[in-house]
Amino acid sequence: MSTVTGQNFIGGSRSAAGTVTLESLDASTGVALPFRFHQATPEEVDRAANAADQAFVEFRQLSPERRAEFLDAIADEIDQLGDDFVALVCRETALPAGRIQGERGRTSGQMRLFAKVLRRGDFLGARIDLAMPDRKPLPRVDLRQYRIGVGPVAVFGASNFPLAFSTAGGDTAAAFAAGCPVVFKAHSGHMATADQVGCAIIRAAEKTGMPKGVFNMIFGAGVGEPLIKHPAIQAVGFTGSLHGGNALSKMAAEREQPIPVFAEMSSINPVILLPQALAARGDKVAGELAASVTMGGGQFCTNPGLVIGLRCPELSAFIEHLTQQMTEQAPHTLLNAGGLRNYTKGVEHLLGHKGITHLAGHTQSGAQAQPQLFKADVSLLLNKDPLLQEEVFGPATIIIEVENDAQLKDALLALRGQLTATLIGEPGDLEHYQWLVPILEQKVGRILVNGYPTGVEVCDAMVHGGPYPATSDARGTSVGSLAIDRFLRPVCYQNYPDALLPAALQNRNPLGLQRLVNGEWSSKAIA
Amino acid sequence: MSTVTGQNFIGGSRSAAGTVTLESLDASTGVALPFRFHQATPEEVDRAANAADQAFVEFRQLSPERRAEFLDAIADEIDQLGDDFVALVCRETALPAGRIQGERGRTSGQMRLFAKVLRRGDFLGARIDLAMPDRKPLPRVDLRQYRIGVGPVAVFGASNFPLAFSTAGGDTAAAFAAGCPVVFKAHSGHMATADQVGCAIIRAAEKTGMPKGVFNMIFGAGVGEPLIKHPAIQAVGFTGSLHGGNALSKMAAEREQPIPVFAEMSSINPVILLPQALAARGDKVAGELAASVTMGGGQFCTNPGLVIGLRCPELSAFIEHLTQQMTEQAPHTLLNAGGLRNYTKGVEHLLGHKGITHLAGHTQSGAQAQPQLFKADVSLLLNKDPLLQEEVFGPATIIIEVENDAQLKDALLALRGQLTATLIGEPGDLEHYQWLVPILEQKVGRILVNGYPTGVEVCDAMVHGGPYPATSDARGTSVGSLAIDRFLRPVCYQNYPDALLPAALQNRNPLGLQRLVNGEWSSKAIA
Repeated sequence: MSTVTGQNFIGGSRSAAGTVTLESLDASTGVALPFRFHQATPEEVDRAANAADQAFVEFRQLSPERRAEFLDAIADEIDQLGDDFVALVCRETALPAGRIQGERGRTSGQMRLFAKVLRRGDFLGARIDLAMPDRKPLPRVDLRQYRIGVGPVAVFGASNFPLAFSTAGGDTAAAFAAGCPVVFKAHSGHMATADQVGCAIIRAAEKTGMPKGVFNMIFGAGVGEPLIKHPAIQAVGFTGSLHGGNALSKMAAEREQPIPVFAEMSSINPVILLPQALAARGDKVAGELAASVTMGGGQFCTNPGLVIGLRCPELSAFIEHLTQQMTEQAPHTLLNAGGLRNYTKGVEHLLGHKGITHLAGHTQSGAQAQPQLFKADVSLLLNKDPLLQEEVFGPATIIIEVENDAQLKDALLALRGQLTATLIGEPGDLEHYQWLVPILEQKVGRILVNGYPTGVEVCDAMVHGGPYPATSDARGTSVGSLAIDRFLRPVCYQNYPDALLPAALQNRNPLGLQRLVNGEWSSKAIA
Repeated sequence: MSTVTGQNFIGGSRSAAGTVTLESLDASTGVALPFRFHQATPEEVDRAANAADQAFVEFRQLSPERRAEFLDAIADEIDQLGDDFVALVCRETALPAGRIQGERGRTSGQMRLFAKVLRRGDFLGARIDLAMPDRKPLPRVDLRQYRIGVGPVAVFGASNFPLAFSTAGGDTAAAFAAGCPVVFKAHSGHMATADQVGCAIIRAAEKTGMPKGVFNMIFGAGVGEPLIKHPAIQAVGFTGSLHGGNALSKMAAEREQPIPVFAEMSSINPVILLPQALAARGDKVAGELAASVTMGGGQFCTNPGLVIGLRCPELSAFIEHLTQQMTEQAPHTLLNAGGLRNYTKGVEHLLGHKGITHLAGHTQSGAQAQPQLFKADVSLLLNKDPLLQEEVFGPATIIIEVENDAQLKDALLALRGQLTATLIGEPGDLEHYQWLVPILEQKVGRILVNGYPTGVEVCDAMVHGGPYPATSDARGTSVGSLAIDRFLRPVCYQNYPDALLPAALQNRNPLGLQRLVNGEWSSKAIA
């Protein structure tokens, strides 16, 4: 392991110009770890953004293969972070070692997926319309389009995935792949982890000859605002709370030059229990659902926070089973004291609401989060009670009974935007309830059948996004290879000499791309 | 021609619930045309947005072929708008008949291009990652992604293209292609034209059995704000002024649910004259440039408003030629009185600035715009004087001499975002000045060589967009088939029964799409 110096990462060097320092706490004991983190000064924030801007010109013009080598090298460095590193992450987050080991593999795998995207080259979006000098009434000029990075990206990582959604997480990987340098705001919940991962990225950047400033990281409270407002920053990736995401979006919109923000924020991930499935395997579903709700202390963006079923004896039996299952779930140490405070407050709000019944869960007290099960009257959903729409981040869920199909429809229409929706159904259920799908498509980014939304595969087809407030822009995903699209913009060349064109657009097609040539896809060279 | 009733288009019917009416003026004489347009009431705006929302569910689920039939039918209806229609457009805009005939063909051609995109199907972005039940340590689920429309789109057309950037223009075509119903805010400068084109769209919608509410149009001042703020509206397309685009972007960002705005706003479209070209054909370039600056009264988003050359005797000779050419250009009747007022004011500001010299152009007076040529000191650009960065909409341009290559670089770096940049150069120039291109790529959406930016081909490879303030989001284009991307968002299906999946994602690939299957592009069925 490298020494944790707690200094900011700026333009390939470390910097500690300020006097304010911060501590990182052991998430289980609250005791400070033996490191000091140096809050970036306004001048350091400025230098970090400028370093990214300077690196952009060179970095974005590197061939896709060269950027792929960088991503592969990061992946190798992350894989080599050993048991001492895992132990450090566990101390900062109270997550178990097995989970961190798995997340390490997910994080390096994510880098390698984007390296594959770079080598495949379709992200370049090459399109060519050849000149038609004899066209009447007017000739057509030669036009060629591909996509380049938008510029330096500011990334704000999540507390709940200290590796996969943090320093070298999906937003950073997507930005690098797009040719965009990154300024990362280290999460206060795992600064030592961030420091170590930052060192791994820098080692990879040096080994593969990337421009200094391709990766920068700043520590501290209040450094996010000047970062977002810095004119060099051209886009923002964020994973966190609705409040935080909204605040960043507002700052970005109020800049002299507004910039896009991709904030993944709040989702209660409804699970819809269909009748035949309840009859066939209600007990099993209750066990699986309790496990999904409490997995990782319920600290997932895709945690199922709302369960909806049609009133019937099988649903009553299911609720009994789920109540029993939830009562038996062990308490969890959350990621940090702030998380526990928010969870306790969220549970108190639910307990205090007269439309909500407490079904299971020990009284919330002490240093751990007690799993909780509530039942809410459907009228709360129909009347858009905000309490029911807001994510309680932790091991809690709410069940709702609806009277009939019409009420089910109304309840789903009353939902705000979500990352996921899940249907638990037998084949007959799915056929009968096919009418649900168009409704869900308009509400969510991912529709699951007979699975649980926790567990987000990193692949080409994944969508980890959805209508507001799940994210600030439903047109993006923050997991999977499509995430690169958020950081690309098209540029067109008109009548440009072939030899001077970017390789992606040259006649001989040196990158071997599939290109849209005169309206047809082709991987051939142009004669 | 249909009767111009001046009523709002709402959910397949016409509506005139309010008492406020508006007139459309003959652009050449200022005389009112014999029509009355009914300003939409707040309740009518609400009904129009709700009609679009209701149509969305059915419309977005139509097959691409069905939507293509709709677009083709609109194209046919537009082609059939005859000489009486052309005469009406000419009266409202003072544009010549030949231009309107050409624009009619461009507008129907645009619809047909999107029909082709629909039939090609690549806009669906189909991606499939098949299940890997035996993968270790965890099995992979089946994941399939494609793209659907974001929802109803509000479109604000431009004054300067009463057909191609208006009622049935590029934004409307792209939204329809994406499966998004449209609420169009009729431009006050050509309401009778809008009425006729609206009727053509409705005829096409009826002939092809589209849901009522697929197209809606509202007339009036102040109806844009409630439209943008309506919860049913999910995205905005706009072409117009920086001031107007910024105002819409602000409203959209301040909604409870923020929505994306694609505003095409302000660009001065620099033309860079390289030395060998000036030596070889400076006279010819001067003639071509004067024609481009004054074409259509200079009322193009891509009008070349800034000309930059390196100080040399050839540049001095060029300036003399251009001065002479611009002096000889005829005055133009602009699109409307407001446009003439703005042009007059813009010219006055330039005349009043001590760093700017007036080279050519008759005193601005009367009902027409006089073509004008100015020369500005390079320091204005280097010091980011706002006067030099702002578009003067009309037949005027500004020339700047730079001392040397270093100052050329600084001048370009000082530019704000633009739709286009143009290089006029001989082969040797282009090779020597290759270092300009990375700078221009970061500033503009389209780089032209030895052409003029006026004239925007509607094709797959076109980019009519660029960094702020050229547009509000450089990741989009408002001309060309990529424009559809702005109105699409991805949705993912996990472990969904094949028979119930959207056709684009079914194993047998019934649409014959190129799909990304397990990381490889393939048009095959899945076994």
